[in-house]
Amino acid sequence: MDIDREEIAQKSLALHLEHQGKLAVQSKVPVQTREDLSLAYTPGVAHVCRYIAEDETRAFSCTLKRNTIAIITDGTAVLGLGNIGPTAAIPVMEGKAILFKEFAGIDAFPICINGDHDDLIGHIRSIAPVFGGINLEDIAAPRCFEIEEELQNLGIPVMHDDQHGAAIAVLAALINACKVTGKKFKDLTVVVSGAGAAGYAICRLLKCIGYEGETCTAVKELIVCDREGIIYRGRHGLYHNIYKYLLGDETNKMLRTGTLSDALRGADVFVGVSSGNLVTADMVRQMNPDPIVLALANPTPEIMPDEARAGGAAIIGTGRSDFPNQVNNVLVFPGVFRGALDAGATKISEEMKIAAAHAIALYVKDPTPEKILPDPLDRGVAQVVAAAVAEMARKCGCVREE
Amino acid sequence: MDIDREEIAQKSLALHLEHQGKLAVQSKVPVQTREDLSLAYTPGVAHVCRYIAEDETRAFSCTLKRNTIAIITDGTAVLGLGNIGPTAAIPVMEGKAILFKEFAGIDAFPICINGDHDDLIGHIRSIAPVFGGINLEDIAAPRCFEIEEELQNLGIPVMHDDQHGAAIAVLAALINACKVTGKKFKDLTVVVSGAGAAGYAICRLLKCIGYEGETCTAVKELIVCDREGIIYRGRHGLYHNIYKYLLGDETNKMLRTGTLSDALRGADVFVGVSSGNLVTADMVRQMNPDPIVLALANPTPEIMPDEARAGGAAIIGTGRSDFPNQVNNVLVFPGVFRGALDAGATKISEEMKIAAAHAIALYVKDPTPEKILPDPLDRGVAQVVAAAVAEMARKCGCVREE
Repeated sequence: MDIDREEIAQKSLALHLEHQGKLAVQSKVPVQTREDLSLAYTPGVAHVCRYIAEDETRAFSCTLKRNTIAIITDGTAVLGLGNIGPTAAIPVMEGKAILFKEFAGIDAFPICINGDHDDLIGHIRSIAPVFGGINLEDIAAPRCFEIEEELQNLGIPVMHDDQHGAAIAVLAALINACKVTGKKFKDLTVVVSGAGAAGYAICRLLKCIGYEGETCTAVKELIVCDREGIIYRGRHGLYHNIYKYLLGDETNKMLRTGTLSDALRGADVFVGVSSGNLVTADMVRQMNPDPIVLALANPTPEIMPDEARAGGAAIIGTGRSDFPNQVNNVLVFPGVFRGALDAGATKISEEMKIAAAHAIALYVKDPTPEKILPDPLDRGVAQVVAAAVAEMARKCGCVREE
Repeated sequence: MDIDREEIAQKSLALHLEHQGKLAVQSKVPVQTREDLSLAYTPGVAHVCRYIAEDETRAFSCTLKRNTIAIITDGTAVLGLGNIGPTAAIPVMEGKAILFKEFAGIDAFPICINGDHDDLIGHIRSIAPVFGGINLEDIAAPRCFEIEEELQNLGIPVMHDDQHGAAIAVLAALINACKVTGKKFKDLTVVVSGAGAAGYAICRLLKCIGYEGETCTAVKELIVCDREGIIYRGRHGLYHNIYKYLLGDETNKMLRTGTLSDALRGADVFVGVSSGNLVTADMVRQMNPDPIVLALANPTPEIMPDEARAGGAAIIGTGRSDFPNQVNNVLVFPGVFRGALDAGATKISEEMKIAAAHAIALYVKDPTPEKILPDPLDRGVAQVVAAAVAEMARKCGCVREE
């Protein structure tokens, strides 16, 4: 840990101790007089209960469900810290909650779940009634895929942000990187390093696996690498993980084998969602002209920007705020959930994710090599993302009947 | 529904629709600059996570757990509406949450649980990590007793308010009613109508069942009536409900039988937590001199105040705000949880409940027949209750080691 990081760490702990956490609740209605109480609580509230009991979708019009989502984790894959458990994960979920509020006006509440993984889906399902949406967070792969899939029939949007927040941000970055470099999206050969939550979702979105919509423009070729090198159909032991098996089935049509270095030869794009220092300037030199390098491992990228530049990278993005082109989920999740809640969405479809990526990309008026994405602190991004997501939700019919 | 009630109902619904519920979240820390984000979220937050991972009780010092409780229901016994389900119960839980905030500065969040009753305990246990306490609410008897008992080992205070909020308020009322009438608490014969959540807890507290502490001053005799009349040891079918069986075992030592009317003959106190219009002026006349009548069924009491007065009642309390001596849980739950959180209590013991009742009673400087309890809107009550509960928690060793 260098001095800056150590200082930030200590200041962060001091802040958390001073405020005893970051999240509070507040009342939206007055609670002063006897009449206030009779309207907000008994006896008046009984009528509101009966009103909902007649038709449960009415909870969206007259309770916190309208604007409230759960941020749910089991603490198995928290930041870069790994399986630290649900209690130690609380500060991250609180942090995410205040970002939802700040960037999109969404009331988000952290739910950190203890217990056997086999029960996780049941626990989440059981507490859904209060929430208008669920943001899954920091759940280890491959378990996270199954959990998200199983919850898609809840009738409210459920999205695992580590997957789709990353994927949507990467798609937005690639759309503008193509504009800058003159590459065509559909001609791209993309190498993804990392087959975890983010890697899998990026592949799904870039190949539109299981999706054939009109806004879909899949890249030409995807090659995924994990710790053992390139994933290909028939690789030994791949069937142990159904999701890697699917990746083997749906990517790498040329059945290339070898290392990450082999994969990068002749590729247009590198997307790293793995760990630091895996890529060298020489490896970037072996890529096609004007290579696009998104090295998103945090805090140490797969390749540092100056090295990537030395290797000839035309566009360089990282996950860090101290370099240009920060690929950050905060560009994504506030607007996606805002749009989903506004439209009364029942899920977050592939079309809605793609619409979000296009909205983020379009928000940058004149993309340059140093500016393919908006500033993560720009409050305007969530608004345009929300509008695009809500419109697409209505268009593709993923909304409640009211 | 009379005109006033109808008007309140409509105004309440309008309020809920206008504000789309009553509860919002807010950030306690700034989220404006890049540095703000680096402290409240990544990368700084990772250090706070590691700090907690080393010792999970630290979550009480640097996360929302310090001041946050869950208000948990399954929607099986909501107000007088019965089993309307978790979604229709949301407005009540939201209302309770804003009362916690308003009266005790506690951040409370509603959790409405869907699913099989057999899983309820597991679901609640699973989501405990975020919360510093759990207020169980509107869960049907006798299931509520078992759920509360099973959760006592969570290491945070867990209290079913329908039980103990009511019981503590009744105990406070009786303490002051004795002062006014000159009756001695330990000589009282108390008849409780209703053997549900509130009735059972009232009996436990007034008989100190399973408790022998120094502040304990049990009444002389308790007689409980349910729909079938007086509960007595050996009554046919009593063993179907273990909690009624226990009541049969622990109350009514004289093995009296008969109706509520029979029970009231020679009693000092009537406590009604059942349903409207069960008691007549004649029945009050059969009680001992200066009878104390707490007719708490809502909205229609077991006997209306004017009728009770006609029967010679010396003290009359109801659950309603439009009569004197409103016996209302809001006198209890904010202060009890405030005190428990402040002390780092691991549970809410019988001693703490009794301390709360004495604090509420003492808060009324000069009790009179029209004023045995503080005004439920009096903001000072929760403070004195919190102080008394916290002190007792420390005294009886029901606090976390830190």
